Amino acid sequence: MDIATLIGLIGAMGLIAGAIFMGGGVGGFIDMPSVLIVIGGTFAVTFVMFPLKTVLSSFKVAMKTFLGSSPDPKQNISQLVSLAETARKESLVALEKVSLDDPFMARGVLLVADGTDETLVRSIMESEIQSMIKRHRTGQNVFKGMGTFSPAFGMIGTLIGLVRMLQNLDDPSSIGPAMAVALLTTFYGAVLANVFFLPMANKLAERSQEEAHYMEITTEGVLSILNGEHPNILKEKLASYLAPNQRESS
Amino acid sequence: MDIATLIGLIGAMGLIAGAIFMGGGVGGFIDMPSVLIVIGGTFAVTFVMFPLKTVLSSFKVAMKTFLGSSPDPKQNISQLVSLAETARKESLVALEKVSLDDPFMARGVLLVADGTDETLVRSIMESEIQSMIKRHRTGQNVFKGMGTFSPAFGMIGTLIGLVRMLQNLDDPSSIGPAMAVALLTTFYGAVLANVFFLPMANKLAERSQEEAHYMEITTEGVLSILNGEHPNILKEKLASYLAPNQRESS
Amino acid sequence: MDIATLIGLIGAMGLIAGAIFMGGGVGGFIDMPSVLIVIGGTFAVTFVMFPLKTVLSSFKVAMKTFLGSSPDPKQNISQLVSLAETARKESLVALEKVSLDDPFMARGVLLVADGTDETLVRSIMESEIQSMIKRHRTGQNVFKGMGTFSPAFGMIGTLIGLVRMLQNLDDPSSIGPAMAVALLTTFYGAVLANVFFLPMANKLAERSQEEAHYMEITTEGVLSILNGEHPNILKEKLASYLAPNQRESS
Amino acid sequence: MDIATLIGLIGAMGLIAGAIFMGGGVGGFIDMPSVLIVIGGTFAVTFVMFPLKTVLSSFKVAMKTFLGSSPDPKQNISQLVSLAETARKESLVALEKVSLDDPFMARGVLLVADGTDETLVRSIMESEIQSMIKRHRTGQNVFKGMGTFSPAFGMIGTLIGLVRMLQNLDDPSSIGPAMAVALLTTFYGAVLANVFFLPMANKLAERSQEEAHYMEITTEGVLSILNGEHPNILKEKLASYLAPNQRESS
Amino acid sequence: MDIATLIGLIGAMGLIAGAIFMGGGVGGFIDMPSVLIVIGGTFAVTFVMFPLKTVLSSFKVAMKTFLGSSPDPKQNISQLVSLAETARKESLVALEKVSLDDPFMARGVLLVADGTDETLVRSIMESEIQSMIKRHRTGQNVFKGMGTFSPAFGMIGTLIGLVRMLQNLDDPSSIGPAMAVALLTTFYGAVLANVFFLPMANKLAERSQEEAHYMEITTEGVLSILNGEHPNILKEKLASYLAPNQRESS
Repeated sequence: MDIATLIGLIGAMGLIAGAIFMGGGVGGFIDMPSVLIVIGGTFAVTFVMFPLKTVLSSFKVAMKTFLGSSPDPKQNISQLVSLAETARKESLVALEKVSLDDPFMARGVLLVADGTDETLVRSIMESEIQSMIKRHRTGQNVFKGMGTFSPAFGMIGTLIGLVRMLQNLDDPSSIGPAMAVALLTTFYGAVLANVFFLPMANKLAERSQEEAHYMEITTEGVLSILNGEHPNILKEKLASYLAPNQRESS
Repeated sequence: MDIATLIGLIGAMGLIAGAIFMGGGVGGFIDMPSVLIVIGGTFAVTFVMFPLKTVLSSFKVAMKTFLGSSPDPKQNISQLVSLAETARKESLVALEKVSLDDPFMARGVLLVADGTDETLVRSIMESEIQSMIKRHRTGQNVFKGMGTFSPAFGMIGTLIGLVRMLQNLDDPSSIGPAMAVALLTTFYGAVLANVFFLPMANKLAERSQEEAHYMEITTEGVLSILNGEHPNILKEKLASYLAPNQRESS
Repeated sequence: MDIATLIGLIGAMGLIAGAIFMGGGVGGFIDMPSVLIVIGGTFAVTFVMFPLKTVLSSFKVAMKTFLGSSPDPKQNISQLVSLAETARKESLVALEKVSLDDPFMARGVLLVADGTDETLVRSIMESEIQSMIKRHRTGQNVFKGMGTFSPAFGMIGTLIGLVRMLQNLDDPSSIGPAMAVALLTTFYGAVLANVFFLPMANKLAERSQEEAHYMEITTEGVLSILNGEHPNILKEKLASYLAPNQRESS
Repeated sequence: MDIATLIGLIGAMGLIAGAIFMGGGVGGFIDMPSVLIVIGGTFAVTFVMFPLKTVLSSFKVAMKTFLGSSPDPKQNISQLVSLAETARKESLVALEKVSLDDPFMARGVLLVADGTDETLVRSIMESEIQSMIKRHRTGQNVFKGMGTFSPAFGMIGTLIGLVRMLQNLDDPSSIGPAMAVALLTTFYGAVLANVFFLPMANKLAERSQEEAHYMEITTEGVLSILNGEHPNILKEKLASYLAPNQRESS
Repeated sequence: MDIATLIGLIGAMGLIAGAIFMGGGVGGFIDMPSVLIVIGGTFAVTFVMFPLKTVLSSFKVAMKTFLGSSPDPKQNISQLVSLAETARKESLVALEKVSLDDPFMARGVLLVADGTDETLVRSIMESEIQSMIKRHRTGQNVFKGMGTFSPAFGMIGTLIGLVRMLQNLDDPSSIGPAMAVALLTTFYGAVLANVFFLPMANKLAERSQEEAHYMEITTEGVLSILNGEHPNILKEKLASYLAPNQRESS
């Protein structure tokens, strides 16, 4: 599991809960109808925004992303270099027998071992990267959408509360608590958007970029192997994808 | 009909109606002049924003989109593979006799059967995709525009109510109800924008993307058939347009 | 004149006027100094934002756009097809004698009749489209700018009114009317931006796109004529620029 | 000096000053600490945002832009046509002796006279346009940044005033004036951003575009001369950069 | 260290502190729980937004950027010209012995000295520029994210304070101070975002652009050397990357 996400969520919720407790108890901050309208409304609108299949698949994408670990481009490069060495020493066909963990690299290498044309290999691998980016972007969009509409439902809830309160100003002692309840939906909307949906949408984008970066390195490497380039040139080429401090001294 | 849209709309409106009922009756939340200025104003401004023809056609596009079902890229691919097999076994001309449901695929296949030049086929199919995207984008823009201007008219209505209330502060007992009415237009504007117009604009965009994706697969497939590529290569190529879990095991 | 713009403006202003009248007279909503600071300030800032020539020319562009009628791409295509037939039956030179209403098409056809090189014809026609888009975009920017700065001047006016009111809280009976007047500039700014400037900027953009679309069809058609393509191919090619329901059954 | 900028600034400030005077004197609207925190804070943050050199050079760019006059593309074209005629009648080398006011055109013509390769001339002229655009964009960014942060400092000032006022609610008669002062920073921030910084950033962008347009015409013209194209073709080509009503009847 | 950043930060904080002191002491503006929720919440959310490694590395990038000095493109060009002269007089291989401070230029020159192919040199150098830009953009995004979420946590804090205050309206004398404390988190959020995070994100972007500009000049120069172009042509070419007033008179 992505430990930073967990720490961040627990930290942020802990601070908010702490601030509430310190002021004298959490009771006044829990109001079931307010919870319902903000969370329920946000989810309802998500189904208006996206096809059913997209909402479900985007939760799966999100799950996989938060539970999976970041790919390591450095290890990726050394694996590609060793493949290039195998191809040099033996032959492209010999790559067929190498077993690889990463299905994307495996697919590319298999295409090369099968003697597929360079243009076709590049077009297959690049359109796979594009497909992955598109799938991930949909996931981000679902989360971003929820981050946009949860404050909107917070405001709708507050407006309902305010209108009702203004219609019943006869009992002055009820004004304060009524307004407090009205503000709760705004509070819920703000917390949902700013602690959960928007930051998570951002992490999905970051992860997607990492994965695309990783897959671009793999594509570059596989094509270099197909062209029979020297493992050292391959290494030199791929090194420029890394930050200087990540590069091996060679 | 797109079931998610329906569920979402009913869910969101139900939650809002529930919140209003629970607070003691829906009466105070209905004010015809307020309804008129927000809905009427939003539609009036839509006619200033777009040519008459565009507004009407965009409602048609929206209808078709909400009522139509999502295309299925997987079935699309298997159909293209079977066309490729026919072309291989018989000839490109034989494709003329195949009857196809999808008019876009039918048009592409007919061009191929007629022996049209590859560049021309690609340019015709791609400019058709672009035309479709443009038409859909106009539809989205109409909905987005309504989602922008309905809160604006909500605010204009509230400002009118506030100015009038501030000019008549003599009777303190009327201040509350007057402000409640003034806030109603803001409430209507927020509901219209956040439950209807903006989420629907988003669904139109999602659908448009699905359709473009589907048409790109079709274009790629038709061109592959024209070039006489082997059905297996076609399958391999098009598979990269799908999410890994959508791909057939082969 | 563009009838939708007129209907929209009258409708929106009528609804606002109706809401004001219903509340007891329009008197309290007219305040000359407030009108002056919002309208005057918006125009003054427009001169800071744009060169003098640009402001003037953009009003002319806007006028022409609102008064002119939408071009009809379907008629455009049939005219191009008939030109292609003339060129086939007689010769490219024969096109010189055809009289055309649309100056852009006339210019393109004249270049073709003069035997100008394809690359040059394309570059001249495309840079003319780009120039038209640029001119129109400037017009849109002027309107968008006014739509951004009129609410800003509304807020500046309201701030002036609030500061003055807060400095004179001695007479409680004057507080309400003073705040009402202070809010008027915000109201004017909101109406100007949301009924006039922003929707009009959008219509200019729509019109510009229509015209660019029309000119692209013309360019494609003229180049097709220059290349001596068969009128049927020309028809097929240009048809993909239209929505399916706009296409002639052939 | 750019007369529209001057008129606009004087007009906007005059209207604001008028609105203040009409309400009974300018005294209550001047508060030195408030001026200091808004103007001082905005400038301080500008130094955090940009390298020192950039801030200084961007003020110079702005000065030059506001004081300089708009280039005239029509005169530019006629000058290029006359250069093309000279080149035709005499030779490319003869251009070396022509003296030109515009340093950019002079540089291009000199390169042509020196017999420089077309690709090199184009790359030098285009990268000079890009450099100019970049320099100007930095200037715009400085002004835009100031337009973003002056309202922010206005809000920070108002928050300080509000917090202090709320801590001293004992004397009711001081509440009004204290809030009035607190609002002044918001007022200053709004005026600075909406009358000065943001509109000026926009004018810089407009001017930059005019200059780029002018330089593109020059580049196109110089390359046409280098290729020995007929002055009439050059005229025809460059005419499409102008609005139809700017073109000479020929 | 970047002196402008330091001056700006001290200036802005000094002005804010001054405004607070002048109003009667800093005591009422410091509230530890408020500090905790805004700063703690912002950092917690940053960990939800970005992978752990990214947050840490972005602080390092930021440090290096604020402490490092701007590169000097003029000196860069003269160094490239002198390398070009060496290459002309001696040979490309002779460049191997030149010792260079800038690791990016050194890498490029070494590739040239090794007789690497032009396309490969360009692709290695350009992908290194892209990598650098990506790394810096991540750094900016972390700061921008903090600048977006610190006001959000300010608002969340204020909402908690308001709700609690509204639930305890019995003691009127406590209302003012309670609201003052509630507003403090908004104040902290505004200062953090507008004095620190957002302006710093902007400076990182500016620095990144400067460095990319510098590296583009270097790439252009190295490739020109590889192609054996005359040092004067190299000078002429690179001069167009500079502002006219930065160019040497030659």
